[in-house]
Amino acid sequence: MKSKSQKNKKHEALKIVVVAPDLDVQDMGDDHAVSQAKRSRALRIGLLESGFNLIATLPADVFLSDRIHQLQPDLIIVDAESEARDALEHVVFATRDERRPIVLFTDDNDTTHVRDAVAVGVSAYIVDGLSSTRIRPILDVAMARFEYEERLRDERDDARHALQERTVVDRAKALLMERQGLSEKDAFTKLRKIAMDKGLKMAEVAQRTLDMADLLS
Amino acid sequence: MKSKSQKNKKHEALKIVVVAPDLDVQDMGDDHAVSQAKRSRALRIGLLESGFNLIATLPADVFLSDRIHQLQPDLIIVDAESEARDALEHVVFATRDERRPIVLFTDDNDTTHVRDAVAVGVSAYIVDGLSSTRIRPILDVAMARFEYEERLRDERDDARHALQERTVVDRAKALLMERQGLSEKDAFTKLRKIAMDKGLKMAEVAQRTLDMADLLS
Repeated sequence: MKSKSQKNKKHEALKIVVVAPDLDVQDMGDDHAVSQAKRSRALRIGLLESGFNLIATLPADVFLSDRIHQLQPDLIIVDAESEARDALEHVVFATRDERRPIVLFTDDNDTTHVRDAVAVGVSAYIVDGLSSTRIRPILDVAMARFEYEERLRDERDDARHALQERTVVDRAKALLMERQGLSEKDAFTKLRKIAMDKGLKMAEVAQRTLDMADLLS
Repeated sequence: MKSKSQKNKKHEALKIVVVAPDLDVQDMGDDHAVSQAKRSRALRIGLLESGFNLIATLPADVFLSDRIHQLQPDLIIVDAESEARDALEHVVFATRDERRPIVLFTDDNDTTHVRDAVAVGVSAYIVDGLSSTRIRPILDVAMARFEYEERLRDERDDARHALQERTVVDRAKALLMERQGLSEKDAFTKLRKIAMDKGLKMAEVAQRTLDMADLLS
């Protein structure tokens, strides 16, 4: 029970931004706009009733990037009935440099763009119907998936980076061996000594060595 | 429109296994069991109505691993009301060697084990309520996420593997340079020649070289 209350506490502190069309319906005879506004209002009430920290509701426009950067939300909810693809494009553009979990709520039954949405980072995608009791589990899953995928991406990037560094160091070593007639061990020692003297990483020294060699050759 | 119909066609061919408790309720006065059986039946009808290929419904028991291995489903749905954790454990055990997308349907509002479920490979986790119109989008998302995560895992594993191979080859090269007084280039050429002669990968030859060196030293 202790871990559950701790977890809930953590999630109540989550800062959430909702991206949704304007609630201010101009034409009350427009059933589509009225029902969208009603649903959108119910979502925000549900978030607040579930104890989440709803810090802003923003339209999907050209200012979205700046606003998200200023607000630094933990999670972004896209509430879009039929214009899901357009709204998503704005949100994806706005989070391309700082990845964040994105949850899309839509009634749009056309799931042909699901794969695209997942590939660009949308962490959940719930179509049709939304009771306030369902909000917390949905956001829990979205956060957990995002964190799991961030870990996979980090592990992949770390391994690729290590491989890249290794390649650069090997090339620099070979260059020193060839041009200065050093043994492999001496070439390695030389690169490491420069790195330590200059307070740089081995790979940085190796890259500079290669850059200079290109210049001087 | 063409891509959509192709996609739907592809998904209709998906082989699905449902893991659920027995529908045969012994005590009709047991409201919990009756409602679980009703929900479970509605799920299977929904799957069939949505055009999915439901190939089997299996209980979460010790035979699950063998049966899943025999049936080779594309996706596994776990339908568990309150025993979600136990059922998941069986399914996760049954898919540990052959990863498959797993979708959990549960009414259990306790989401403390969501993170565990995601970490062990559950691709979606939808709590409470399930209309047949929602099934396809949910499974679409689960498949898309699974494929995306498989790609991330593959990319990570490829990079780690390449790094590991590089390390082994470098160590074997260094060994040949030290013991046989070869230059780096000659050591590399020697390893490559053996690999080509024996139809092996460089890393395999390098590993054998290191193994033999350990034996002979």
